[in-house]
Amino acid sequence: MNNKACIVGGGVIGGGWVARFLLNGWDVSVYDPDPEAERKINEVLENARRSLPSLYDKVLPTEGELKLHENIADAVVNANWIQESVPERLELKHKIIKQIQQYANEDSVLGSSTSGFKPSELQKNALNPQQIIVTHPFNPVYLLPLVELVPSVVTPVTVVDRAKEILISIGMKPLHIRKEIDAHIADRLLEAVWREGLWLIKDEIATTEEIDDAIRFGFGLRWAQMGLFETYRIAGGEAGMKHFISQFGPCLEWPWSKLTDVPDLTDSLINEIAEQSDAQSGHLSIRELEQLRDDNLVGMMRALKKSGSGAGGIINCHETTLRMPVEEKQLPITVSRQVPQSWTDYNGHMNETNYLEASSQATDAFMELIGADANYIASGYSYFTAETHIRYLAEVKAGENISITTQVLTGEGKKMKLFHRIFATNGDMVATCETLQLHMDLKARCTSLPSAAVAEKLNFYAKAHSEMSSPEGSGRYVGQRP
Amino acid sequence: MNNKACIVGGGVIGGGWVARFLLNGWDVSVYDPDPEAERKINEVLENARRSLPSLYDKVLPTEGELKLHENIADAVVNANWIQESVPERLELKHKIIKQIQQYANEDSVLGSSTSGFKPSELQKNALNPQQIIVTHPFNPVYLLPLVELVPSVVTPVTVVDRAKEILISIGMKPLHIRKEIDAHIADRLLEAVWREGLWLIKDEIATTEEIDDAIRFGFGLRWAQMGLFETYRIAGGEAGMKHFISQFGPCLEWPWSKLTDVPDLTDSLINEIAEQSDAQSGHLSIRELEQLRDDNLVGMMRALKKSGSGAGGIINCHETTLRMPVEEKQLPITVSRQVPQSWTDYNGHMNETNYLEASSQATDAFMELIGADANYIASGYSYFTAETHIRYLAEVKAGENISITTQVLTGEGKKMKLFHRIFATNGDMVATCETLQLHMDLKARCTSLPSAAVAEKLNFYAKAHSEMSSPEGSGRYVGQRP
Repeated sequence: MNNKACIVGGGVIGGGWVARFLLNGWDVSVYDPDPEAERKINEVLENARRSLPSLYDKVLPTEGELKLHENIADAVVNANWIQESVPERLELKHKIIKQIQQYANEDSVLGSSTSGFKPSELQKNALNPQQIIVTHPFNPVYLLPLVELVPSVVTPVTVVDRAKEILISIGMKPLHIRKEIDAHIADRLLEAVWREGLWLIKDEIATTEEIDDAIRFGFGLRWAQMGLFETYRIAGGEAGMKHFISQFGPCLEWPWSKLTDVPDLTDSLINEIAEQSDAQSGHLSIRELEQLRDDNLVGMMRALKKSGSGAGGIINCHETTLRMPVEEKQLPITVSRQVPQSWTDYNGHMNETNYLEASSQATDAFMELIGADANYIASGYSYFTAETHIRYLAEVKAGENISITTQVLTGEGKKMKLFHRIFATNGDMVATCETLQLHMDLKARCTSLPSAAVAEKLNFYAKAHSEMSSPEGSGRYVGQRP
Repeated sequence: MNNKACIVGGGVIGGGWVARFLLNGWDVSVYDPDPEAERKINEVLENARRSLPSLYDKVLPTEGELKLHENIADAVVNANWIQESVPERLELKHKIIKQIQQYANEDSVLGSSTSGFKPSELQKNALNPQQIIVTHPFNPVYLLPLVELVPSVVTPVTVVDRAKEILISIGMKPLHIRKEIDAHIADRLLEAVWREGLWLIKDEIATTEEIDDAIRFGFGLRWAQMGLFETYRIAGGEAGMKHFISQFGPCLEWPWSKLTDVPDLTDSLINEIAEQSDAQSGHLSIRELEQLRDDNLVGMMRALKKSGSGAGGIINCHETTLRMPVEEKQLPITVSRQVPQSWTDYNGHMNETNYLEASSQATDAFMELIGADANYIASGYSYFTAETHIRYLAEVKAGENISITTQVLTGEGKKMKLFHRIFATNGDMVATCETLQLHMDLKARCTSLPSAAVAEKLNFYAKAHSEMSSPEGSGRYVGQRP
């Protein structure tokens, strides 16, 4: 049976939680009295289905079942995780928590998305204070990994551990905040920037667009991969962090910023901000902005996968927990994945390069199957590609799932010739890739024989696959008639 | 004759300016009395050569000439741009500016990298105040596009315009700040975050690593592509920015943050930060951290090229100004570029996929040559790849330059068969790619004849290239003996 998450409050944040759990294979029940809730949740889900699977080079678990309930009891019953995302009013949160706890299992986690309240405030007068914990996520919840995990002094370690484990299992990064404070950590930093931004607008120094540009063309890029301190550690250079701070510190005393005060949010200031924001971004609908944001996030996070920095490391870890489908069609399935937006080109379909990228992943997966894995490569041996032939049989669109089977055509001595077939979800074969791999001594940079263990496993597949007929499309030159 | 930039002060920031100008084809002269200046500049240059060209899919101009001078007069003479990056002490800056202006051409731009001072302060008592302007960059200067461009009331518009033009021509994003204030814009926002961060550490709420995590796993990713306001515009959803601010505003009055004060930077606090930073990042040298940062920045900025958002848009614009080498070897050169770090795989060389990525760029460039360009595609016609055969002849390492020539093997009716040869800098052929393209009606999604204009140009090349012999390696199947 699937795990079950109950989401109470289905706005932008609640909807993001729905998507995060559902796309990671959990069943999800929702309680939200808003008559528009279903439409809103489906809009968030549509964005999430378009982007979250694109982070991974393996397919996510089969989506769970989504149910909207008219009363809180049905939604909460038997949920392993309950997430409260109602508006930021303490008396409302208390009321909802009381209702939830009448029906909640004692050992389920009750997380609150609050950005401001401390867990001890939420726990006050609760039926079961120990199960309540702050789990504050960031929009879009289905893509950004951060969750501020804040226990109070009465929260048992076991609850913290269970919450961490579940959040990690759905691809998130729980940041355990050891002492509860108002607004946790991230929102304190955000608030500081936000206030300073308001002064810059009020004093007519800069517009919303100029402030955004000052962020995204400069330190925003730094902060997406390292944070404040690691970045400055580098700026300090060989002299080290201590030297940097001693030098930099006195600047903080300069009367630069307006931070001692908040500008009055008069109608006139609100209008000014809204008008500037319209001028900056009004040519795009919210939906278009969301898709742009999500495509950019996916693209950047995929780039970070390469080094394993920041969000890239979280994705890599999560990916190792994703299972490949079991073998079928007598051939091993070496790739099963969604086609990310970033693989689409100006012709509106998967670019020719990414057919090879997927095939290359299939070769890697087959190498792992025969023991030519990361450890083997670290020991100084690998396979290099000598030649490749691809037939493009059908278009593939972003968001589609593809799978690849791998047949060994030759597997003897230094040579390994593979034939990958790429299939769409409907079973159609969309491409074939024939590739000749040569076993290499990485130190000498010349061909060599594989280890006995690798040779044996390769031979096993070569023999099994030799009983099949030679695939149509193999041994062809470019332009040869079928 | 090349343009000449003079960099006064060769630290991390000055060295970054050296690299930015030099790699964009400017001659650069440096004045810095530090006996270590040459070593330090060369270290920055090494990082820059490794990363800046990787942002582009075309080769940058030939590097200019770098000269270090022992006196300021020789360095300054005939420079079109002079950049002052000496330590942040106003009297020192006044002294250096006075020396510079004794030798500077009247129409050169004299930019200051100051992060705190206003241009009017720098201009005080200067020989030629009108040529002085603040051009405040961000580390690493060779990668991050942002430059805060701040004139004073006496700065002529012509100087602002010339400065903008030059900064854009070296791939940067001048952000024109219309009213001078202390610390411009970005550093005000940074200062706000920095102060709040210090309080979080002093109060033992969070460590440097936890604060960095709160940034890079959450809003840092948002800010790398959109800024503060565009992100919140999305959060406001359909109700709009005005609604969002009216709702959000009251939260700012909550007594969350410590921003009314700066913690004393006592020895004990400085030590605590330094120790936490060591625990967080001490396992990597500054050099390793720099390379990690740069690889991540390049990867993310390349991802942003796809949508043209933020830094990606700046790179795309700059790329259109880069010229291809002139035709040689009777065949058109369709690609000339550096191999980015991100194209390297676990075997320590360019991945098989990226040989095809470069070849695909060659096909695109050849399509442009025959008029099957972006406008043609927008009109509903394009070429799709039907089949491709690649021979991998030699390894290519990240940082190497490659170029591709394109020969037409067939160009009649719906068919276009191309033969790309990929060459390393030393002239060795490292791969060939034979590819069959079919002309498509994009609306009907079926093959069609090209326009008369495209057919004519394709025919021109097909005829010219048919006089050459059929290339070795064409018409081969995978594993065929030469």
